[in-house]
Amino acid sequence: MKPVGIAMPGNERLTDDLAAHFDFERGLATVRRFPDGESHVRAETSVEGRHVFIVCTLDRPDDKLVPLLLLASAIREAGAASVGLVAPYLAYMRQDRQFHAGETISAQHVAAWISRHVDWLVTVDPHLHRIADLSQVYSIPSRVAHAADGVASWVRLNVSQPLLIGPDEESAQWVRDVAQRAEVPFIILAKNRRGDRDVEVSVPEVDRWRSHTPVLVDDIVSTARTMIETVGHLRRIGLAAPVCVAVHAVFAQTAFEDLHAAGAADIVSCDTISHPSNRIALAFAIAASVREFLP
Amino acid sequence: MKPVGIAMPGNERLTDDLAAHFDFERGLATVRRFPDGESHVRAETSVEGRHVFIVCTLDRPDDKLVPLLLLASAIREAGAASVGLVAPYLAYMRQDRQFHAGETISAQHVAAWISRHVDWLVTVDPHLHRIADLSQVYSIPSRVAHAADGVASWVRLNVSQPLLIGPDEESAQWVRDVAQRAEVPFIILAKNRRGDRDVEVSVPEVDRWRSHTPVLVDDIVSTARTMIETVGHLRRIGLAAPVCVAVHAVFAQTAFEDLHAAGAADIVSCDTISHPSNRIALAFAIAASVREFLP
Repeated sequence: MKPVGIAMPGNERLTDDLAAHFDFERGLATVRRFPDGESHVRAETSVEGRHVFIVCTLDRPDDKLVPLLLLASAIREAGAASVGLVAPYLAYMRQDRQFHAGETISAQHVAAWISRHVDWLVTVDPHLHRIADLSQVYSIPSRVAHAADGVASWVRLNVSQPLLIGPDEESAQWVRDVAQRAEVPFIILAKNRRGDRDVEVSVPEVDRWRSHTPVLVDDIVSTARTMIETVGHLRRIGLAAPVCVAVHAVFAQTAFEDLHAAGAADIVSCDTISHPSNRIALAFAIAASVREFLP
Repeated sequence: MKPVGIAMPGNERLTDDLAAHFDFERGLATVRRFPDGESHVRAETSVEGRHVFIVCTLDRPDDKLVPLLLLASAIREAGAASVGLVAPYLAYMRQDRQFHAGETISAQHVAAWISRHVDWLVTVDPHLHRIADLSQVYSIPSRVAHAADGVASWVRLNVSQPLLIGPDEESAQWVRDVAQRAEVPFIILAKNRRGDRDVEVSVPEVDRWRSHTPVLVDDIVSTARTMIETVGHLRRIGLAAPVCVAVHAVFAQTAFEDLHAAGAADIVSCDTISHPSNRIALAFAIAASVREFLP
């Protein structure tokens, strides 16, 4: 019997895209809210004895987690052989230490909740900072699909004379990787912070890049503050208006409009979170990771 | 050291009211959402070695559960001797069986999540139907505070010549209890359903009650459909416009306005869920139950 892939609401398109890469049955589930605000979930497809995965990206996670965990339970109780989770954006990875007394490491708790309800996890480039590997917080097996190939080939096909730019040292490894795959030059900005609002950015050999199109790349763009600041620095140095690329298009509140207003020539994102800026499809990479968990 | 009571956002007034009934320190916590929609919680009061309770009513529960469980974890990790939950309205108690294949008994899962994060639970008249007792789903000790005394004394003090009315057999036990405490008469409506829209309601000795004020009482008023229907029946029989009393004022969408429009003379609720109709304070009953868990 084929595996079954079930989309949580809002994840239908990505689930359709996955189906173009390997053979599974699109399963159906009801996920809705009762008038009183409680979630009602139901697996509509027969899952008995079958390997099942749920596709549910986890931006703005709080009111997605309850129906997700309930649906995973319903599928297991209906006799599924296994239940996996495909969460292209994985929430709560940034709360990876206790910054102040009285706080808790949310990443650990959310990972524990998910680990108790599903058998495996696939995600795309999670924010790994103090947590070096998902296995430090997730007790279930996990695979990480990478956006670098998708980003690199989009840049090669869509930007003329690109110059990849990492806004700070933290982004260096990731930007270098994309640049090498795309076979394009890259620079990492060096910042001299002389006060809260007084930051000097220097680009070595700046004249060499005046005819290039700067391509700013970051993994999670939420408030877009780093990108907005960097767009400003690049314009002041006299480089062309940059193309901004986000792996995970969280775009809180007016961040997307603010980044446009700051002078981005274009804003492009991968499709891990559904957003009008999505132009880089990652289904091929996600599908390869999912396949590893299916017989 | 005094116990510590901490209000989740929206539960400050009830927590203040509890403080009028027994001695505890009002603890402080930060509970907010980051721009990306993730919850950030922090216990601001020192809780080391202390008995702590969190006050968090659980109507519209899905986006309340994540910060609640995180805060309970933060408090425990900060060294609290115990962490209790005061949830005047307890969510997910109505999903108490599998009605269709592919569903799950949400009541069990949500109870298991809460039971893993807190040491005890106090609530007010939970919806106990197929689940006869909270201990069938909650593995932690629990106490149920009752609204009957509060409702009965409000009726006695505020309604002249009240006639308590239970809309159906399901409400009989509860309405009888309130009526006896208030020492007022009551009737339970007998319905003859002759079709989806064709329901005949009969009241024995209807002439006896024409000068009384009908008081409709129900435990959870969500869509208010039962109450609206019953208000219509009573008006057609020729009784006075009824006062409607809800223990738990969920009032989904326009239910409150709809119930007014249907002809309720007044709509009154207990304060288990903050709502403009709150007029019956239950802090005295909740406080008595909380005290049982504190040294």
